[in-house]
Amino acid sequence: MERRSFIRKAGASAATGGAILAAPAIISAQPTIRWRLASSFPKSLDTIYGAAEVMSKAVSAMSGGKFQISVHAAGELVPAFQVLDAVQQGNIEMGHTALYYFFGKDPTWAVATAIPFGLNCRQFQAWWYQGGGSQIFNEFAEKSAGVYTMLAGNTGAQMGGWFRKEVTSVEDLKGLKFRVGGFAGQVLTKLGVVPQQIPGGDIYPALEKGTIDAAEWIGPYDDEKLGFNKVAKFYYYPGWWEGGPGLHAIVNQKALATLTPEYKAILEAAAEQANGFMMAKYDAVNPQALKRLVGSGTQLKPFPRPVMDACFKAAQEVYTETNAANANFKKVSDHYFNFQRDQISWFRVTENTFDDYMASAKR
Amino acid sequence: MERRSFIRKAGASAATGGAILAAPAIISAQPTIRWRLASSFPKSLDTIYGAAEVMSKAVSAMSGGKFQISVHAAGELVPAFQVLDAVQQGNIEMGHTALYYFFGKDPTWAVATAIPFGLNCRQFQAWWYQGGGSQIFNEFAEKSAGVYTMLAGNTGAQMGGWFRKEVTSVEDLKGLKFRVGGFAGQVLTKLGVVPQQIPGGDIYPALEKGTIDAAEWIGPYDDEKLGFNKVAKFYYYPGWWEGGPGLHAIVNQKALATLTPEYKAILEAAAEQANGFMMAKYDAVNPQALKRLVGSGTQLKPFPRPVMDACFKAAQEVYTETNAANANFKKVSDHYFNFQRDQISWFRVTENTFDDYMASAKR
Repeated sequence: MERRSFIRKAGASAATGGAILAAPAIISAQPTIRWRLASSFPKSLDTIYGAAEVMSKAVSAMSGGKFQISVHAAGELVPAFQVLDAVQQGNIEMGHTALYYFFGKDPTWAVATAIPFGLNCRQFQAWWYQGGGSQIFNEFAEKSAGVYTMLAGNTGAQMGGWFRKEVTSVEDLKGLKFRVGGFAGQVLTKLGVVPQQIPGGDIYPALEKGTIDAAEWIGPYDDEKLGFNKVAKFYYYPGWWEGGPGLHAIVNQKALATLTPEYKAILEAAAEQANGFMMAKYDAVNPQALKRLVGSGTQLKPFPRPVMDACFKAAQEVYTETNAANANFKKVSDHYFNFQRDQISWFRVTENTFDDYMASAKR
Repeated sequence: MERRSFIRKAGASAATGGAILAAPAIISAQPTIRWRLASSFPKSLDTIYGAAEVMSKAVSAMSGGKFQISVHAAGELVPAFQVLDAVQQGNIEMGHTALYYFFGKDPTWAVATAIPFGLNCRQFQAWWYQGGGSQIFNEFAEKSAGVYTMLAGNTGAQMGGWFRKEVTSVEDLKGLKFRVGGFAGQVLTKLGVVPQQIPGGDIYPALEKGTIDAAEWIGPYDDEKLGFNKVAKFYYYPGWWEGGPGLHAIVNQKALATLTPEYKAILEAAAEQANGFMMAKYDAVNPQALKRLVGSGTQLKPFPRPVMDACFKAAQEVYTETNAANANFKKVSDHYFNFQRDQISWFRVTENTFDDYMASAKR
């Protein structure tokens, strides 16, 4: 068929109510786009970094290769902690990051990732997708940085970290040099901990030398790769400051506005696929890593209840102070904690009871 | 621009390495498609039924309206329990269903939805997406019915149901007329329960008249709509036979083969969006419904531990018998339970501990 006449036929079909539906192809017009995405993570964190690749591949597959997003590891285009700035300035169209890295700019960013004694993974997804969380947070994100954020990953409840000595009481926290940041650092400071800011790659030697007493990272799969079990014996849980941390794909608002409705829909769907991928992947790989760690002599320890309670109390103090100082934080976190209260009242019933029964029955 | 010359330019751009990337549109050729999807659910189950609509809308949005899937409630095209047959025969291209409805054809179908003392929602997603579950189950689905299945929803752990009298011991199960089906019915039969098969709409009058003693349905949000709290006082948990039931979009294999790679990718992404939607929506609406039920006088009761243990033991017997009789079931369920063992060993550590702490701290 001569191409121009085919187009005319295709164009006619819409007017005639789909009379040629059996025809193999209708002409559409979607633009070719090349975007760059800066990840805040190294390729070695294959699960977190990999989620951005999952998103990029899905966008390409759905658009027949016409919408391409190239994924760049931390440091390749911009350093890990400058991803938000770079997207805000429009130097790159997208980023993939943990928004609590920008706690220093405004603690409100942390609500979208994880805050102490917050929502677990599933509760966070309920808040974000169906509880109004995405809307209220994106109002802040647009106003503060001209970015649109999409949930694109979760690690699940993280571990509490690696400790060279046992923590048997609240007293043991006094003077403890613990590699931990953000909100958790502020909470633990109230209990005498001296928070340390150390990049992931520098934790091992610091723990080995005893420059620090403890360090938190992520969970078994990622922690094993950094070898912390060789320099600290006790592996504590739960990481109460990260009960279900969400990772986000962030998009410059002006770049987003250039997308066709089809590409916007494709990008949202791809971000949701990345979100599902990351949690499923972590759950699939963490159990074996945990077994190997325990097999190597690692001792799993729950934080003692009095330590948890002291941290919980200190967290409420930090929230009270932060609310008083920051209206953005108060608005978004009030919404989040109201949602959490209901979630917990519901999860306590059938969900937690089922999980706890299975944990005891399948020993 | 005269249209034909524009096409020539567009065609040239690929060869010249994207030199005209700034041009607004490149011609593509994706076909116009109209598919029909039969849901096994009525519109009144707006969360479950709604997930198929979410999927359909996403497919339309991503394809610029060219790939349309019309969603039909149970009974509109085919009855609820004939959805699999209709998709297998190619009378309709797609269905949205709970595959355990086809337990009678082969109990292996149930593994993709929920089986007694099985995976919770998140563990199920890990098995399906990253643990090899989708692959091993789809081998069975293709061989048995020529369909491809995609995860497209989850209700979370369901409630154990509405009981007119308290269940205080295993003895109380003897002779109990309980509206419950499939695997759970087989398990409970071993403990003297007389399982009843009653469509959702007929449960209320049966409970009211005392024709049955108890009935399970879904959870607070859906159960409240049917008014069970008016005719049964005790609301038991957990629904151990449905710890995280997955709903599926199913596609006739021959229809699937007609899709372009772009449309296949779009359909997979849309199913994942439906999957995320349903769980988030249930979690967002269940807490308020539970509050209203408790406010109306409903008494929440956990099944006593000896009852749970007796059911667990009876379930293992049913699995042993089913494995002996059905090689498909043995293959798929062995894979599932191996995965579960690892999941539980991991969830027991940080995830359950975090959830349990939050449930007690936020009272």
